[in-house]
Amino acid sequence: MVSKLSIILFSGTTDKILSAGVLSQAGAAMGSEVRIFVTFWGLLSFTKGEKKMMLPKEFEQMGPVFMQGMAREHVKSWYEMIMEAKEFGAKVYACSMACGVMGIKREDLDPIVDDMVGAAAFLQQAEGGQTLYI
Amino acid sequence: MVSKLSIILFSGTTDKILSAGVLSQAGAAMGSEVRIFVTFWGLLSFTKGEKKMMLPKEFEQMGPVFMQGMAREHVKSWYEMIMEAKEFGAKVYACSMACGVMGIKREDLDPIVDDMVGAAAFLQQAEGGQTLYI
Amino acid sequence: MVSKLSIILFSGTTDKILSAGVLSQAGAAMGSEVRIFVTFWGLLSFTKGEKKMMLPKEFEQMGPVFMQGMAREHVKSWYEMIMEAKEFGAKVYACSMACGVMGIKREDLDPIVDDMVGAAAFLQQAEGGQTLYI
Repeated sequence: MVSKLSIILFSGTTDKILSAGVLSQAGAAMGSEVRIFVTFWGLLSFTKGEKKMMLPKEFEQMGPVFMQGMAREHVKSWYEMIMEAKEFGAKVYACSMACGVMGIKREDLDPIVDDMVGAAAFLQQAEGGQTLYI
Repeated sequence: MVSKLSIILFSGTTDKILSAGVLSQAGAAMGSEVRIFVTFWGLLSFTKGEKKMMLPKEFEQMGPVFMQGMAREHVKSWYEMIMEAKEFGAKVYACSMACGVMGIKREDLDPIVDDMVGAAAFLQQAEGGQTLYI
Repeated sequence: MVSKLSIILFSGTTDKILSAGVLSQAGAAMGSEVRIFVTFWGLLSFTKGEKKMMLPKEFEQMGPVFMQGMAREHVKSWYEMIMEAKEFGAKVYACSMACGVMGIKREDLDPIVDDMVGAAAFLQQAEGGQTLYI
């Protein structure tokens, strides 16, 4: 039985985007249908160009520990993890409404994004599976 | 088949409350049974009186872009979106324990709230559907 | 029918950990199979030693109201709530990858943690239930 994992990626800090990457990769590798719906602040990291590291204010001082630990443990970047999930069939969607609000056009989106969709369409596809709001 | 969408709205920043509004409205409009359980910081926007705009510290400087984009795209306020969801049958509940902790009485709640309930009762109603923690 | 409630506890602020405690306790008390997967910043409160109170920057000034309200309403600490959930059979897991990144060894973990597991194993166990990302 193929299960479904849907992720609404609202957050824009790197720790949460990395977490979405880990879960997508883990889900896709074990055979789940994975879909990521990137919205709001999450979109800032899914446009073309450099991906900036940003941590939540409360844990900013943990930045160096976090970075060193990632390097020491050979943890891949969130971008690489999502690319791996896509090799297993995962799809990445950008929220059409949030793109409109933030003035992001289709051609501004990073090629990792498969399509722009609305929230209602995404919720419909998520039916019958697990949905995480990150 | 009518599906269920349950939202635990814990966050108190306007971006997340707006996101809860979008998802509630989208879910309710496509025929899902929608229930919102407002708790903790979320409650600060569900009492009577003016709703203050508040963004997370990390993205505070994006406030003006956010507001202008909402106006340009004619995006409704979260309050209007939840009211629309309610016209389709959505219900808004306030967490009884969190109201107690924050000293919020029933008569302090905005009329958009249908009832006060406990976490266990809410979880029970959410069974068999999608539950998002926002 | 026994239902399942799985919680991915990513956040490290006390308000969210408390919320995970409330939901775990409520779910376990009503007969659900409850599993908590502690990852990232959440892990900082699941190592041995003193648990520090930390609130999100946006609501820091609400700290005293929050603490007084908890005391007045006799709300238990999150640790006691999770211990109660465990008496009903709940399990607490630490994310093995995040422990590696943060340099946390098995012997550093608080005894409230039952085991270290990977994200894929946790997602597999969550199948067919509700999963909350906190």
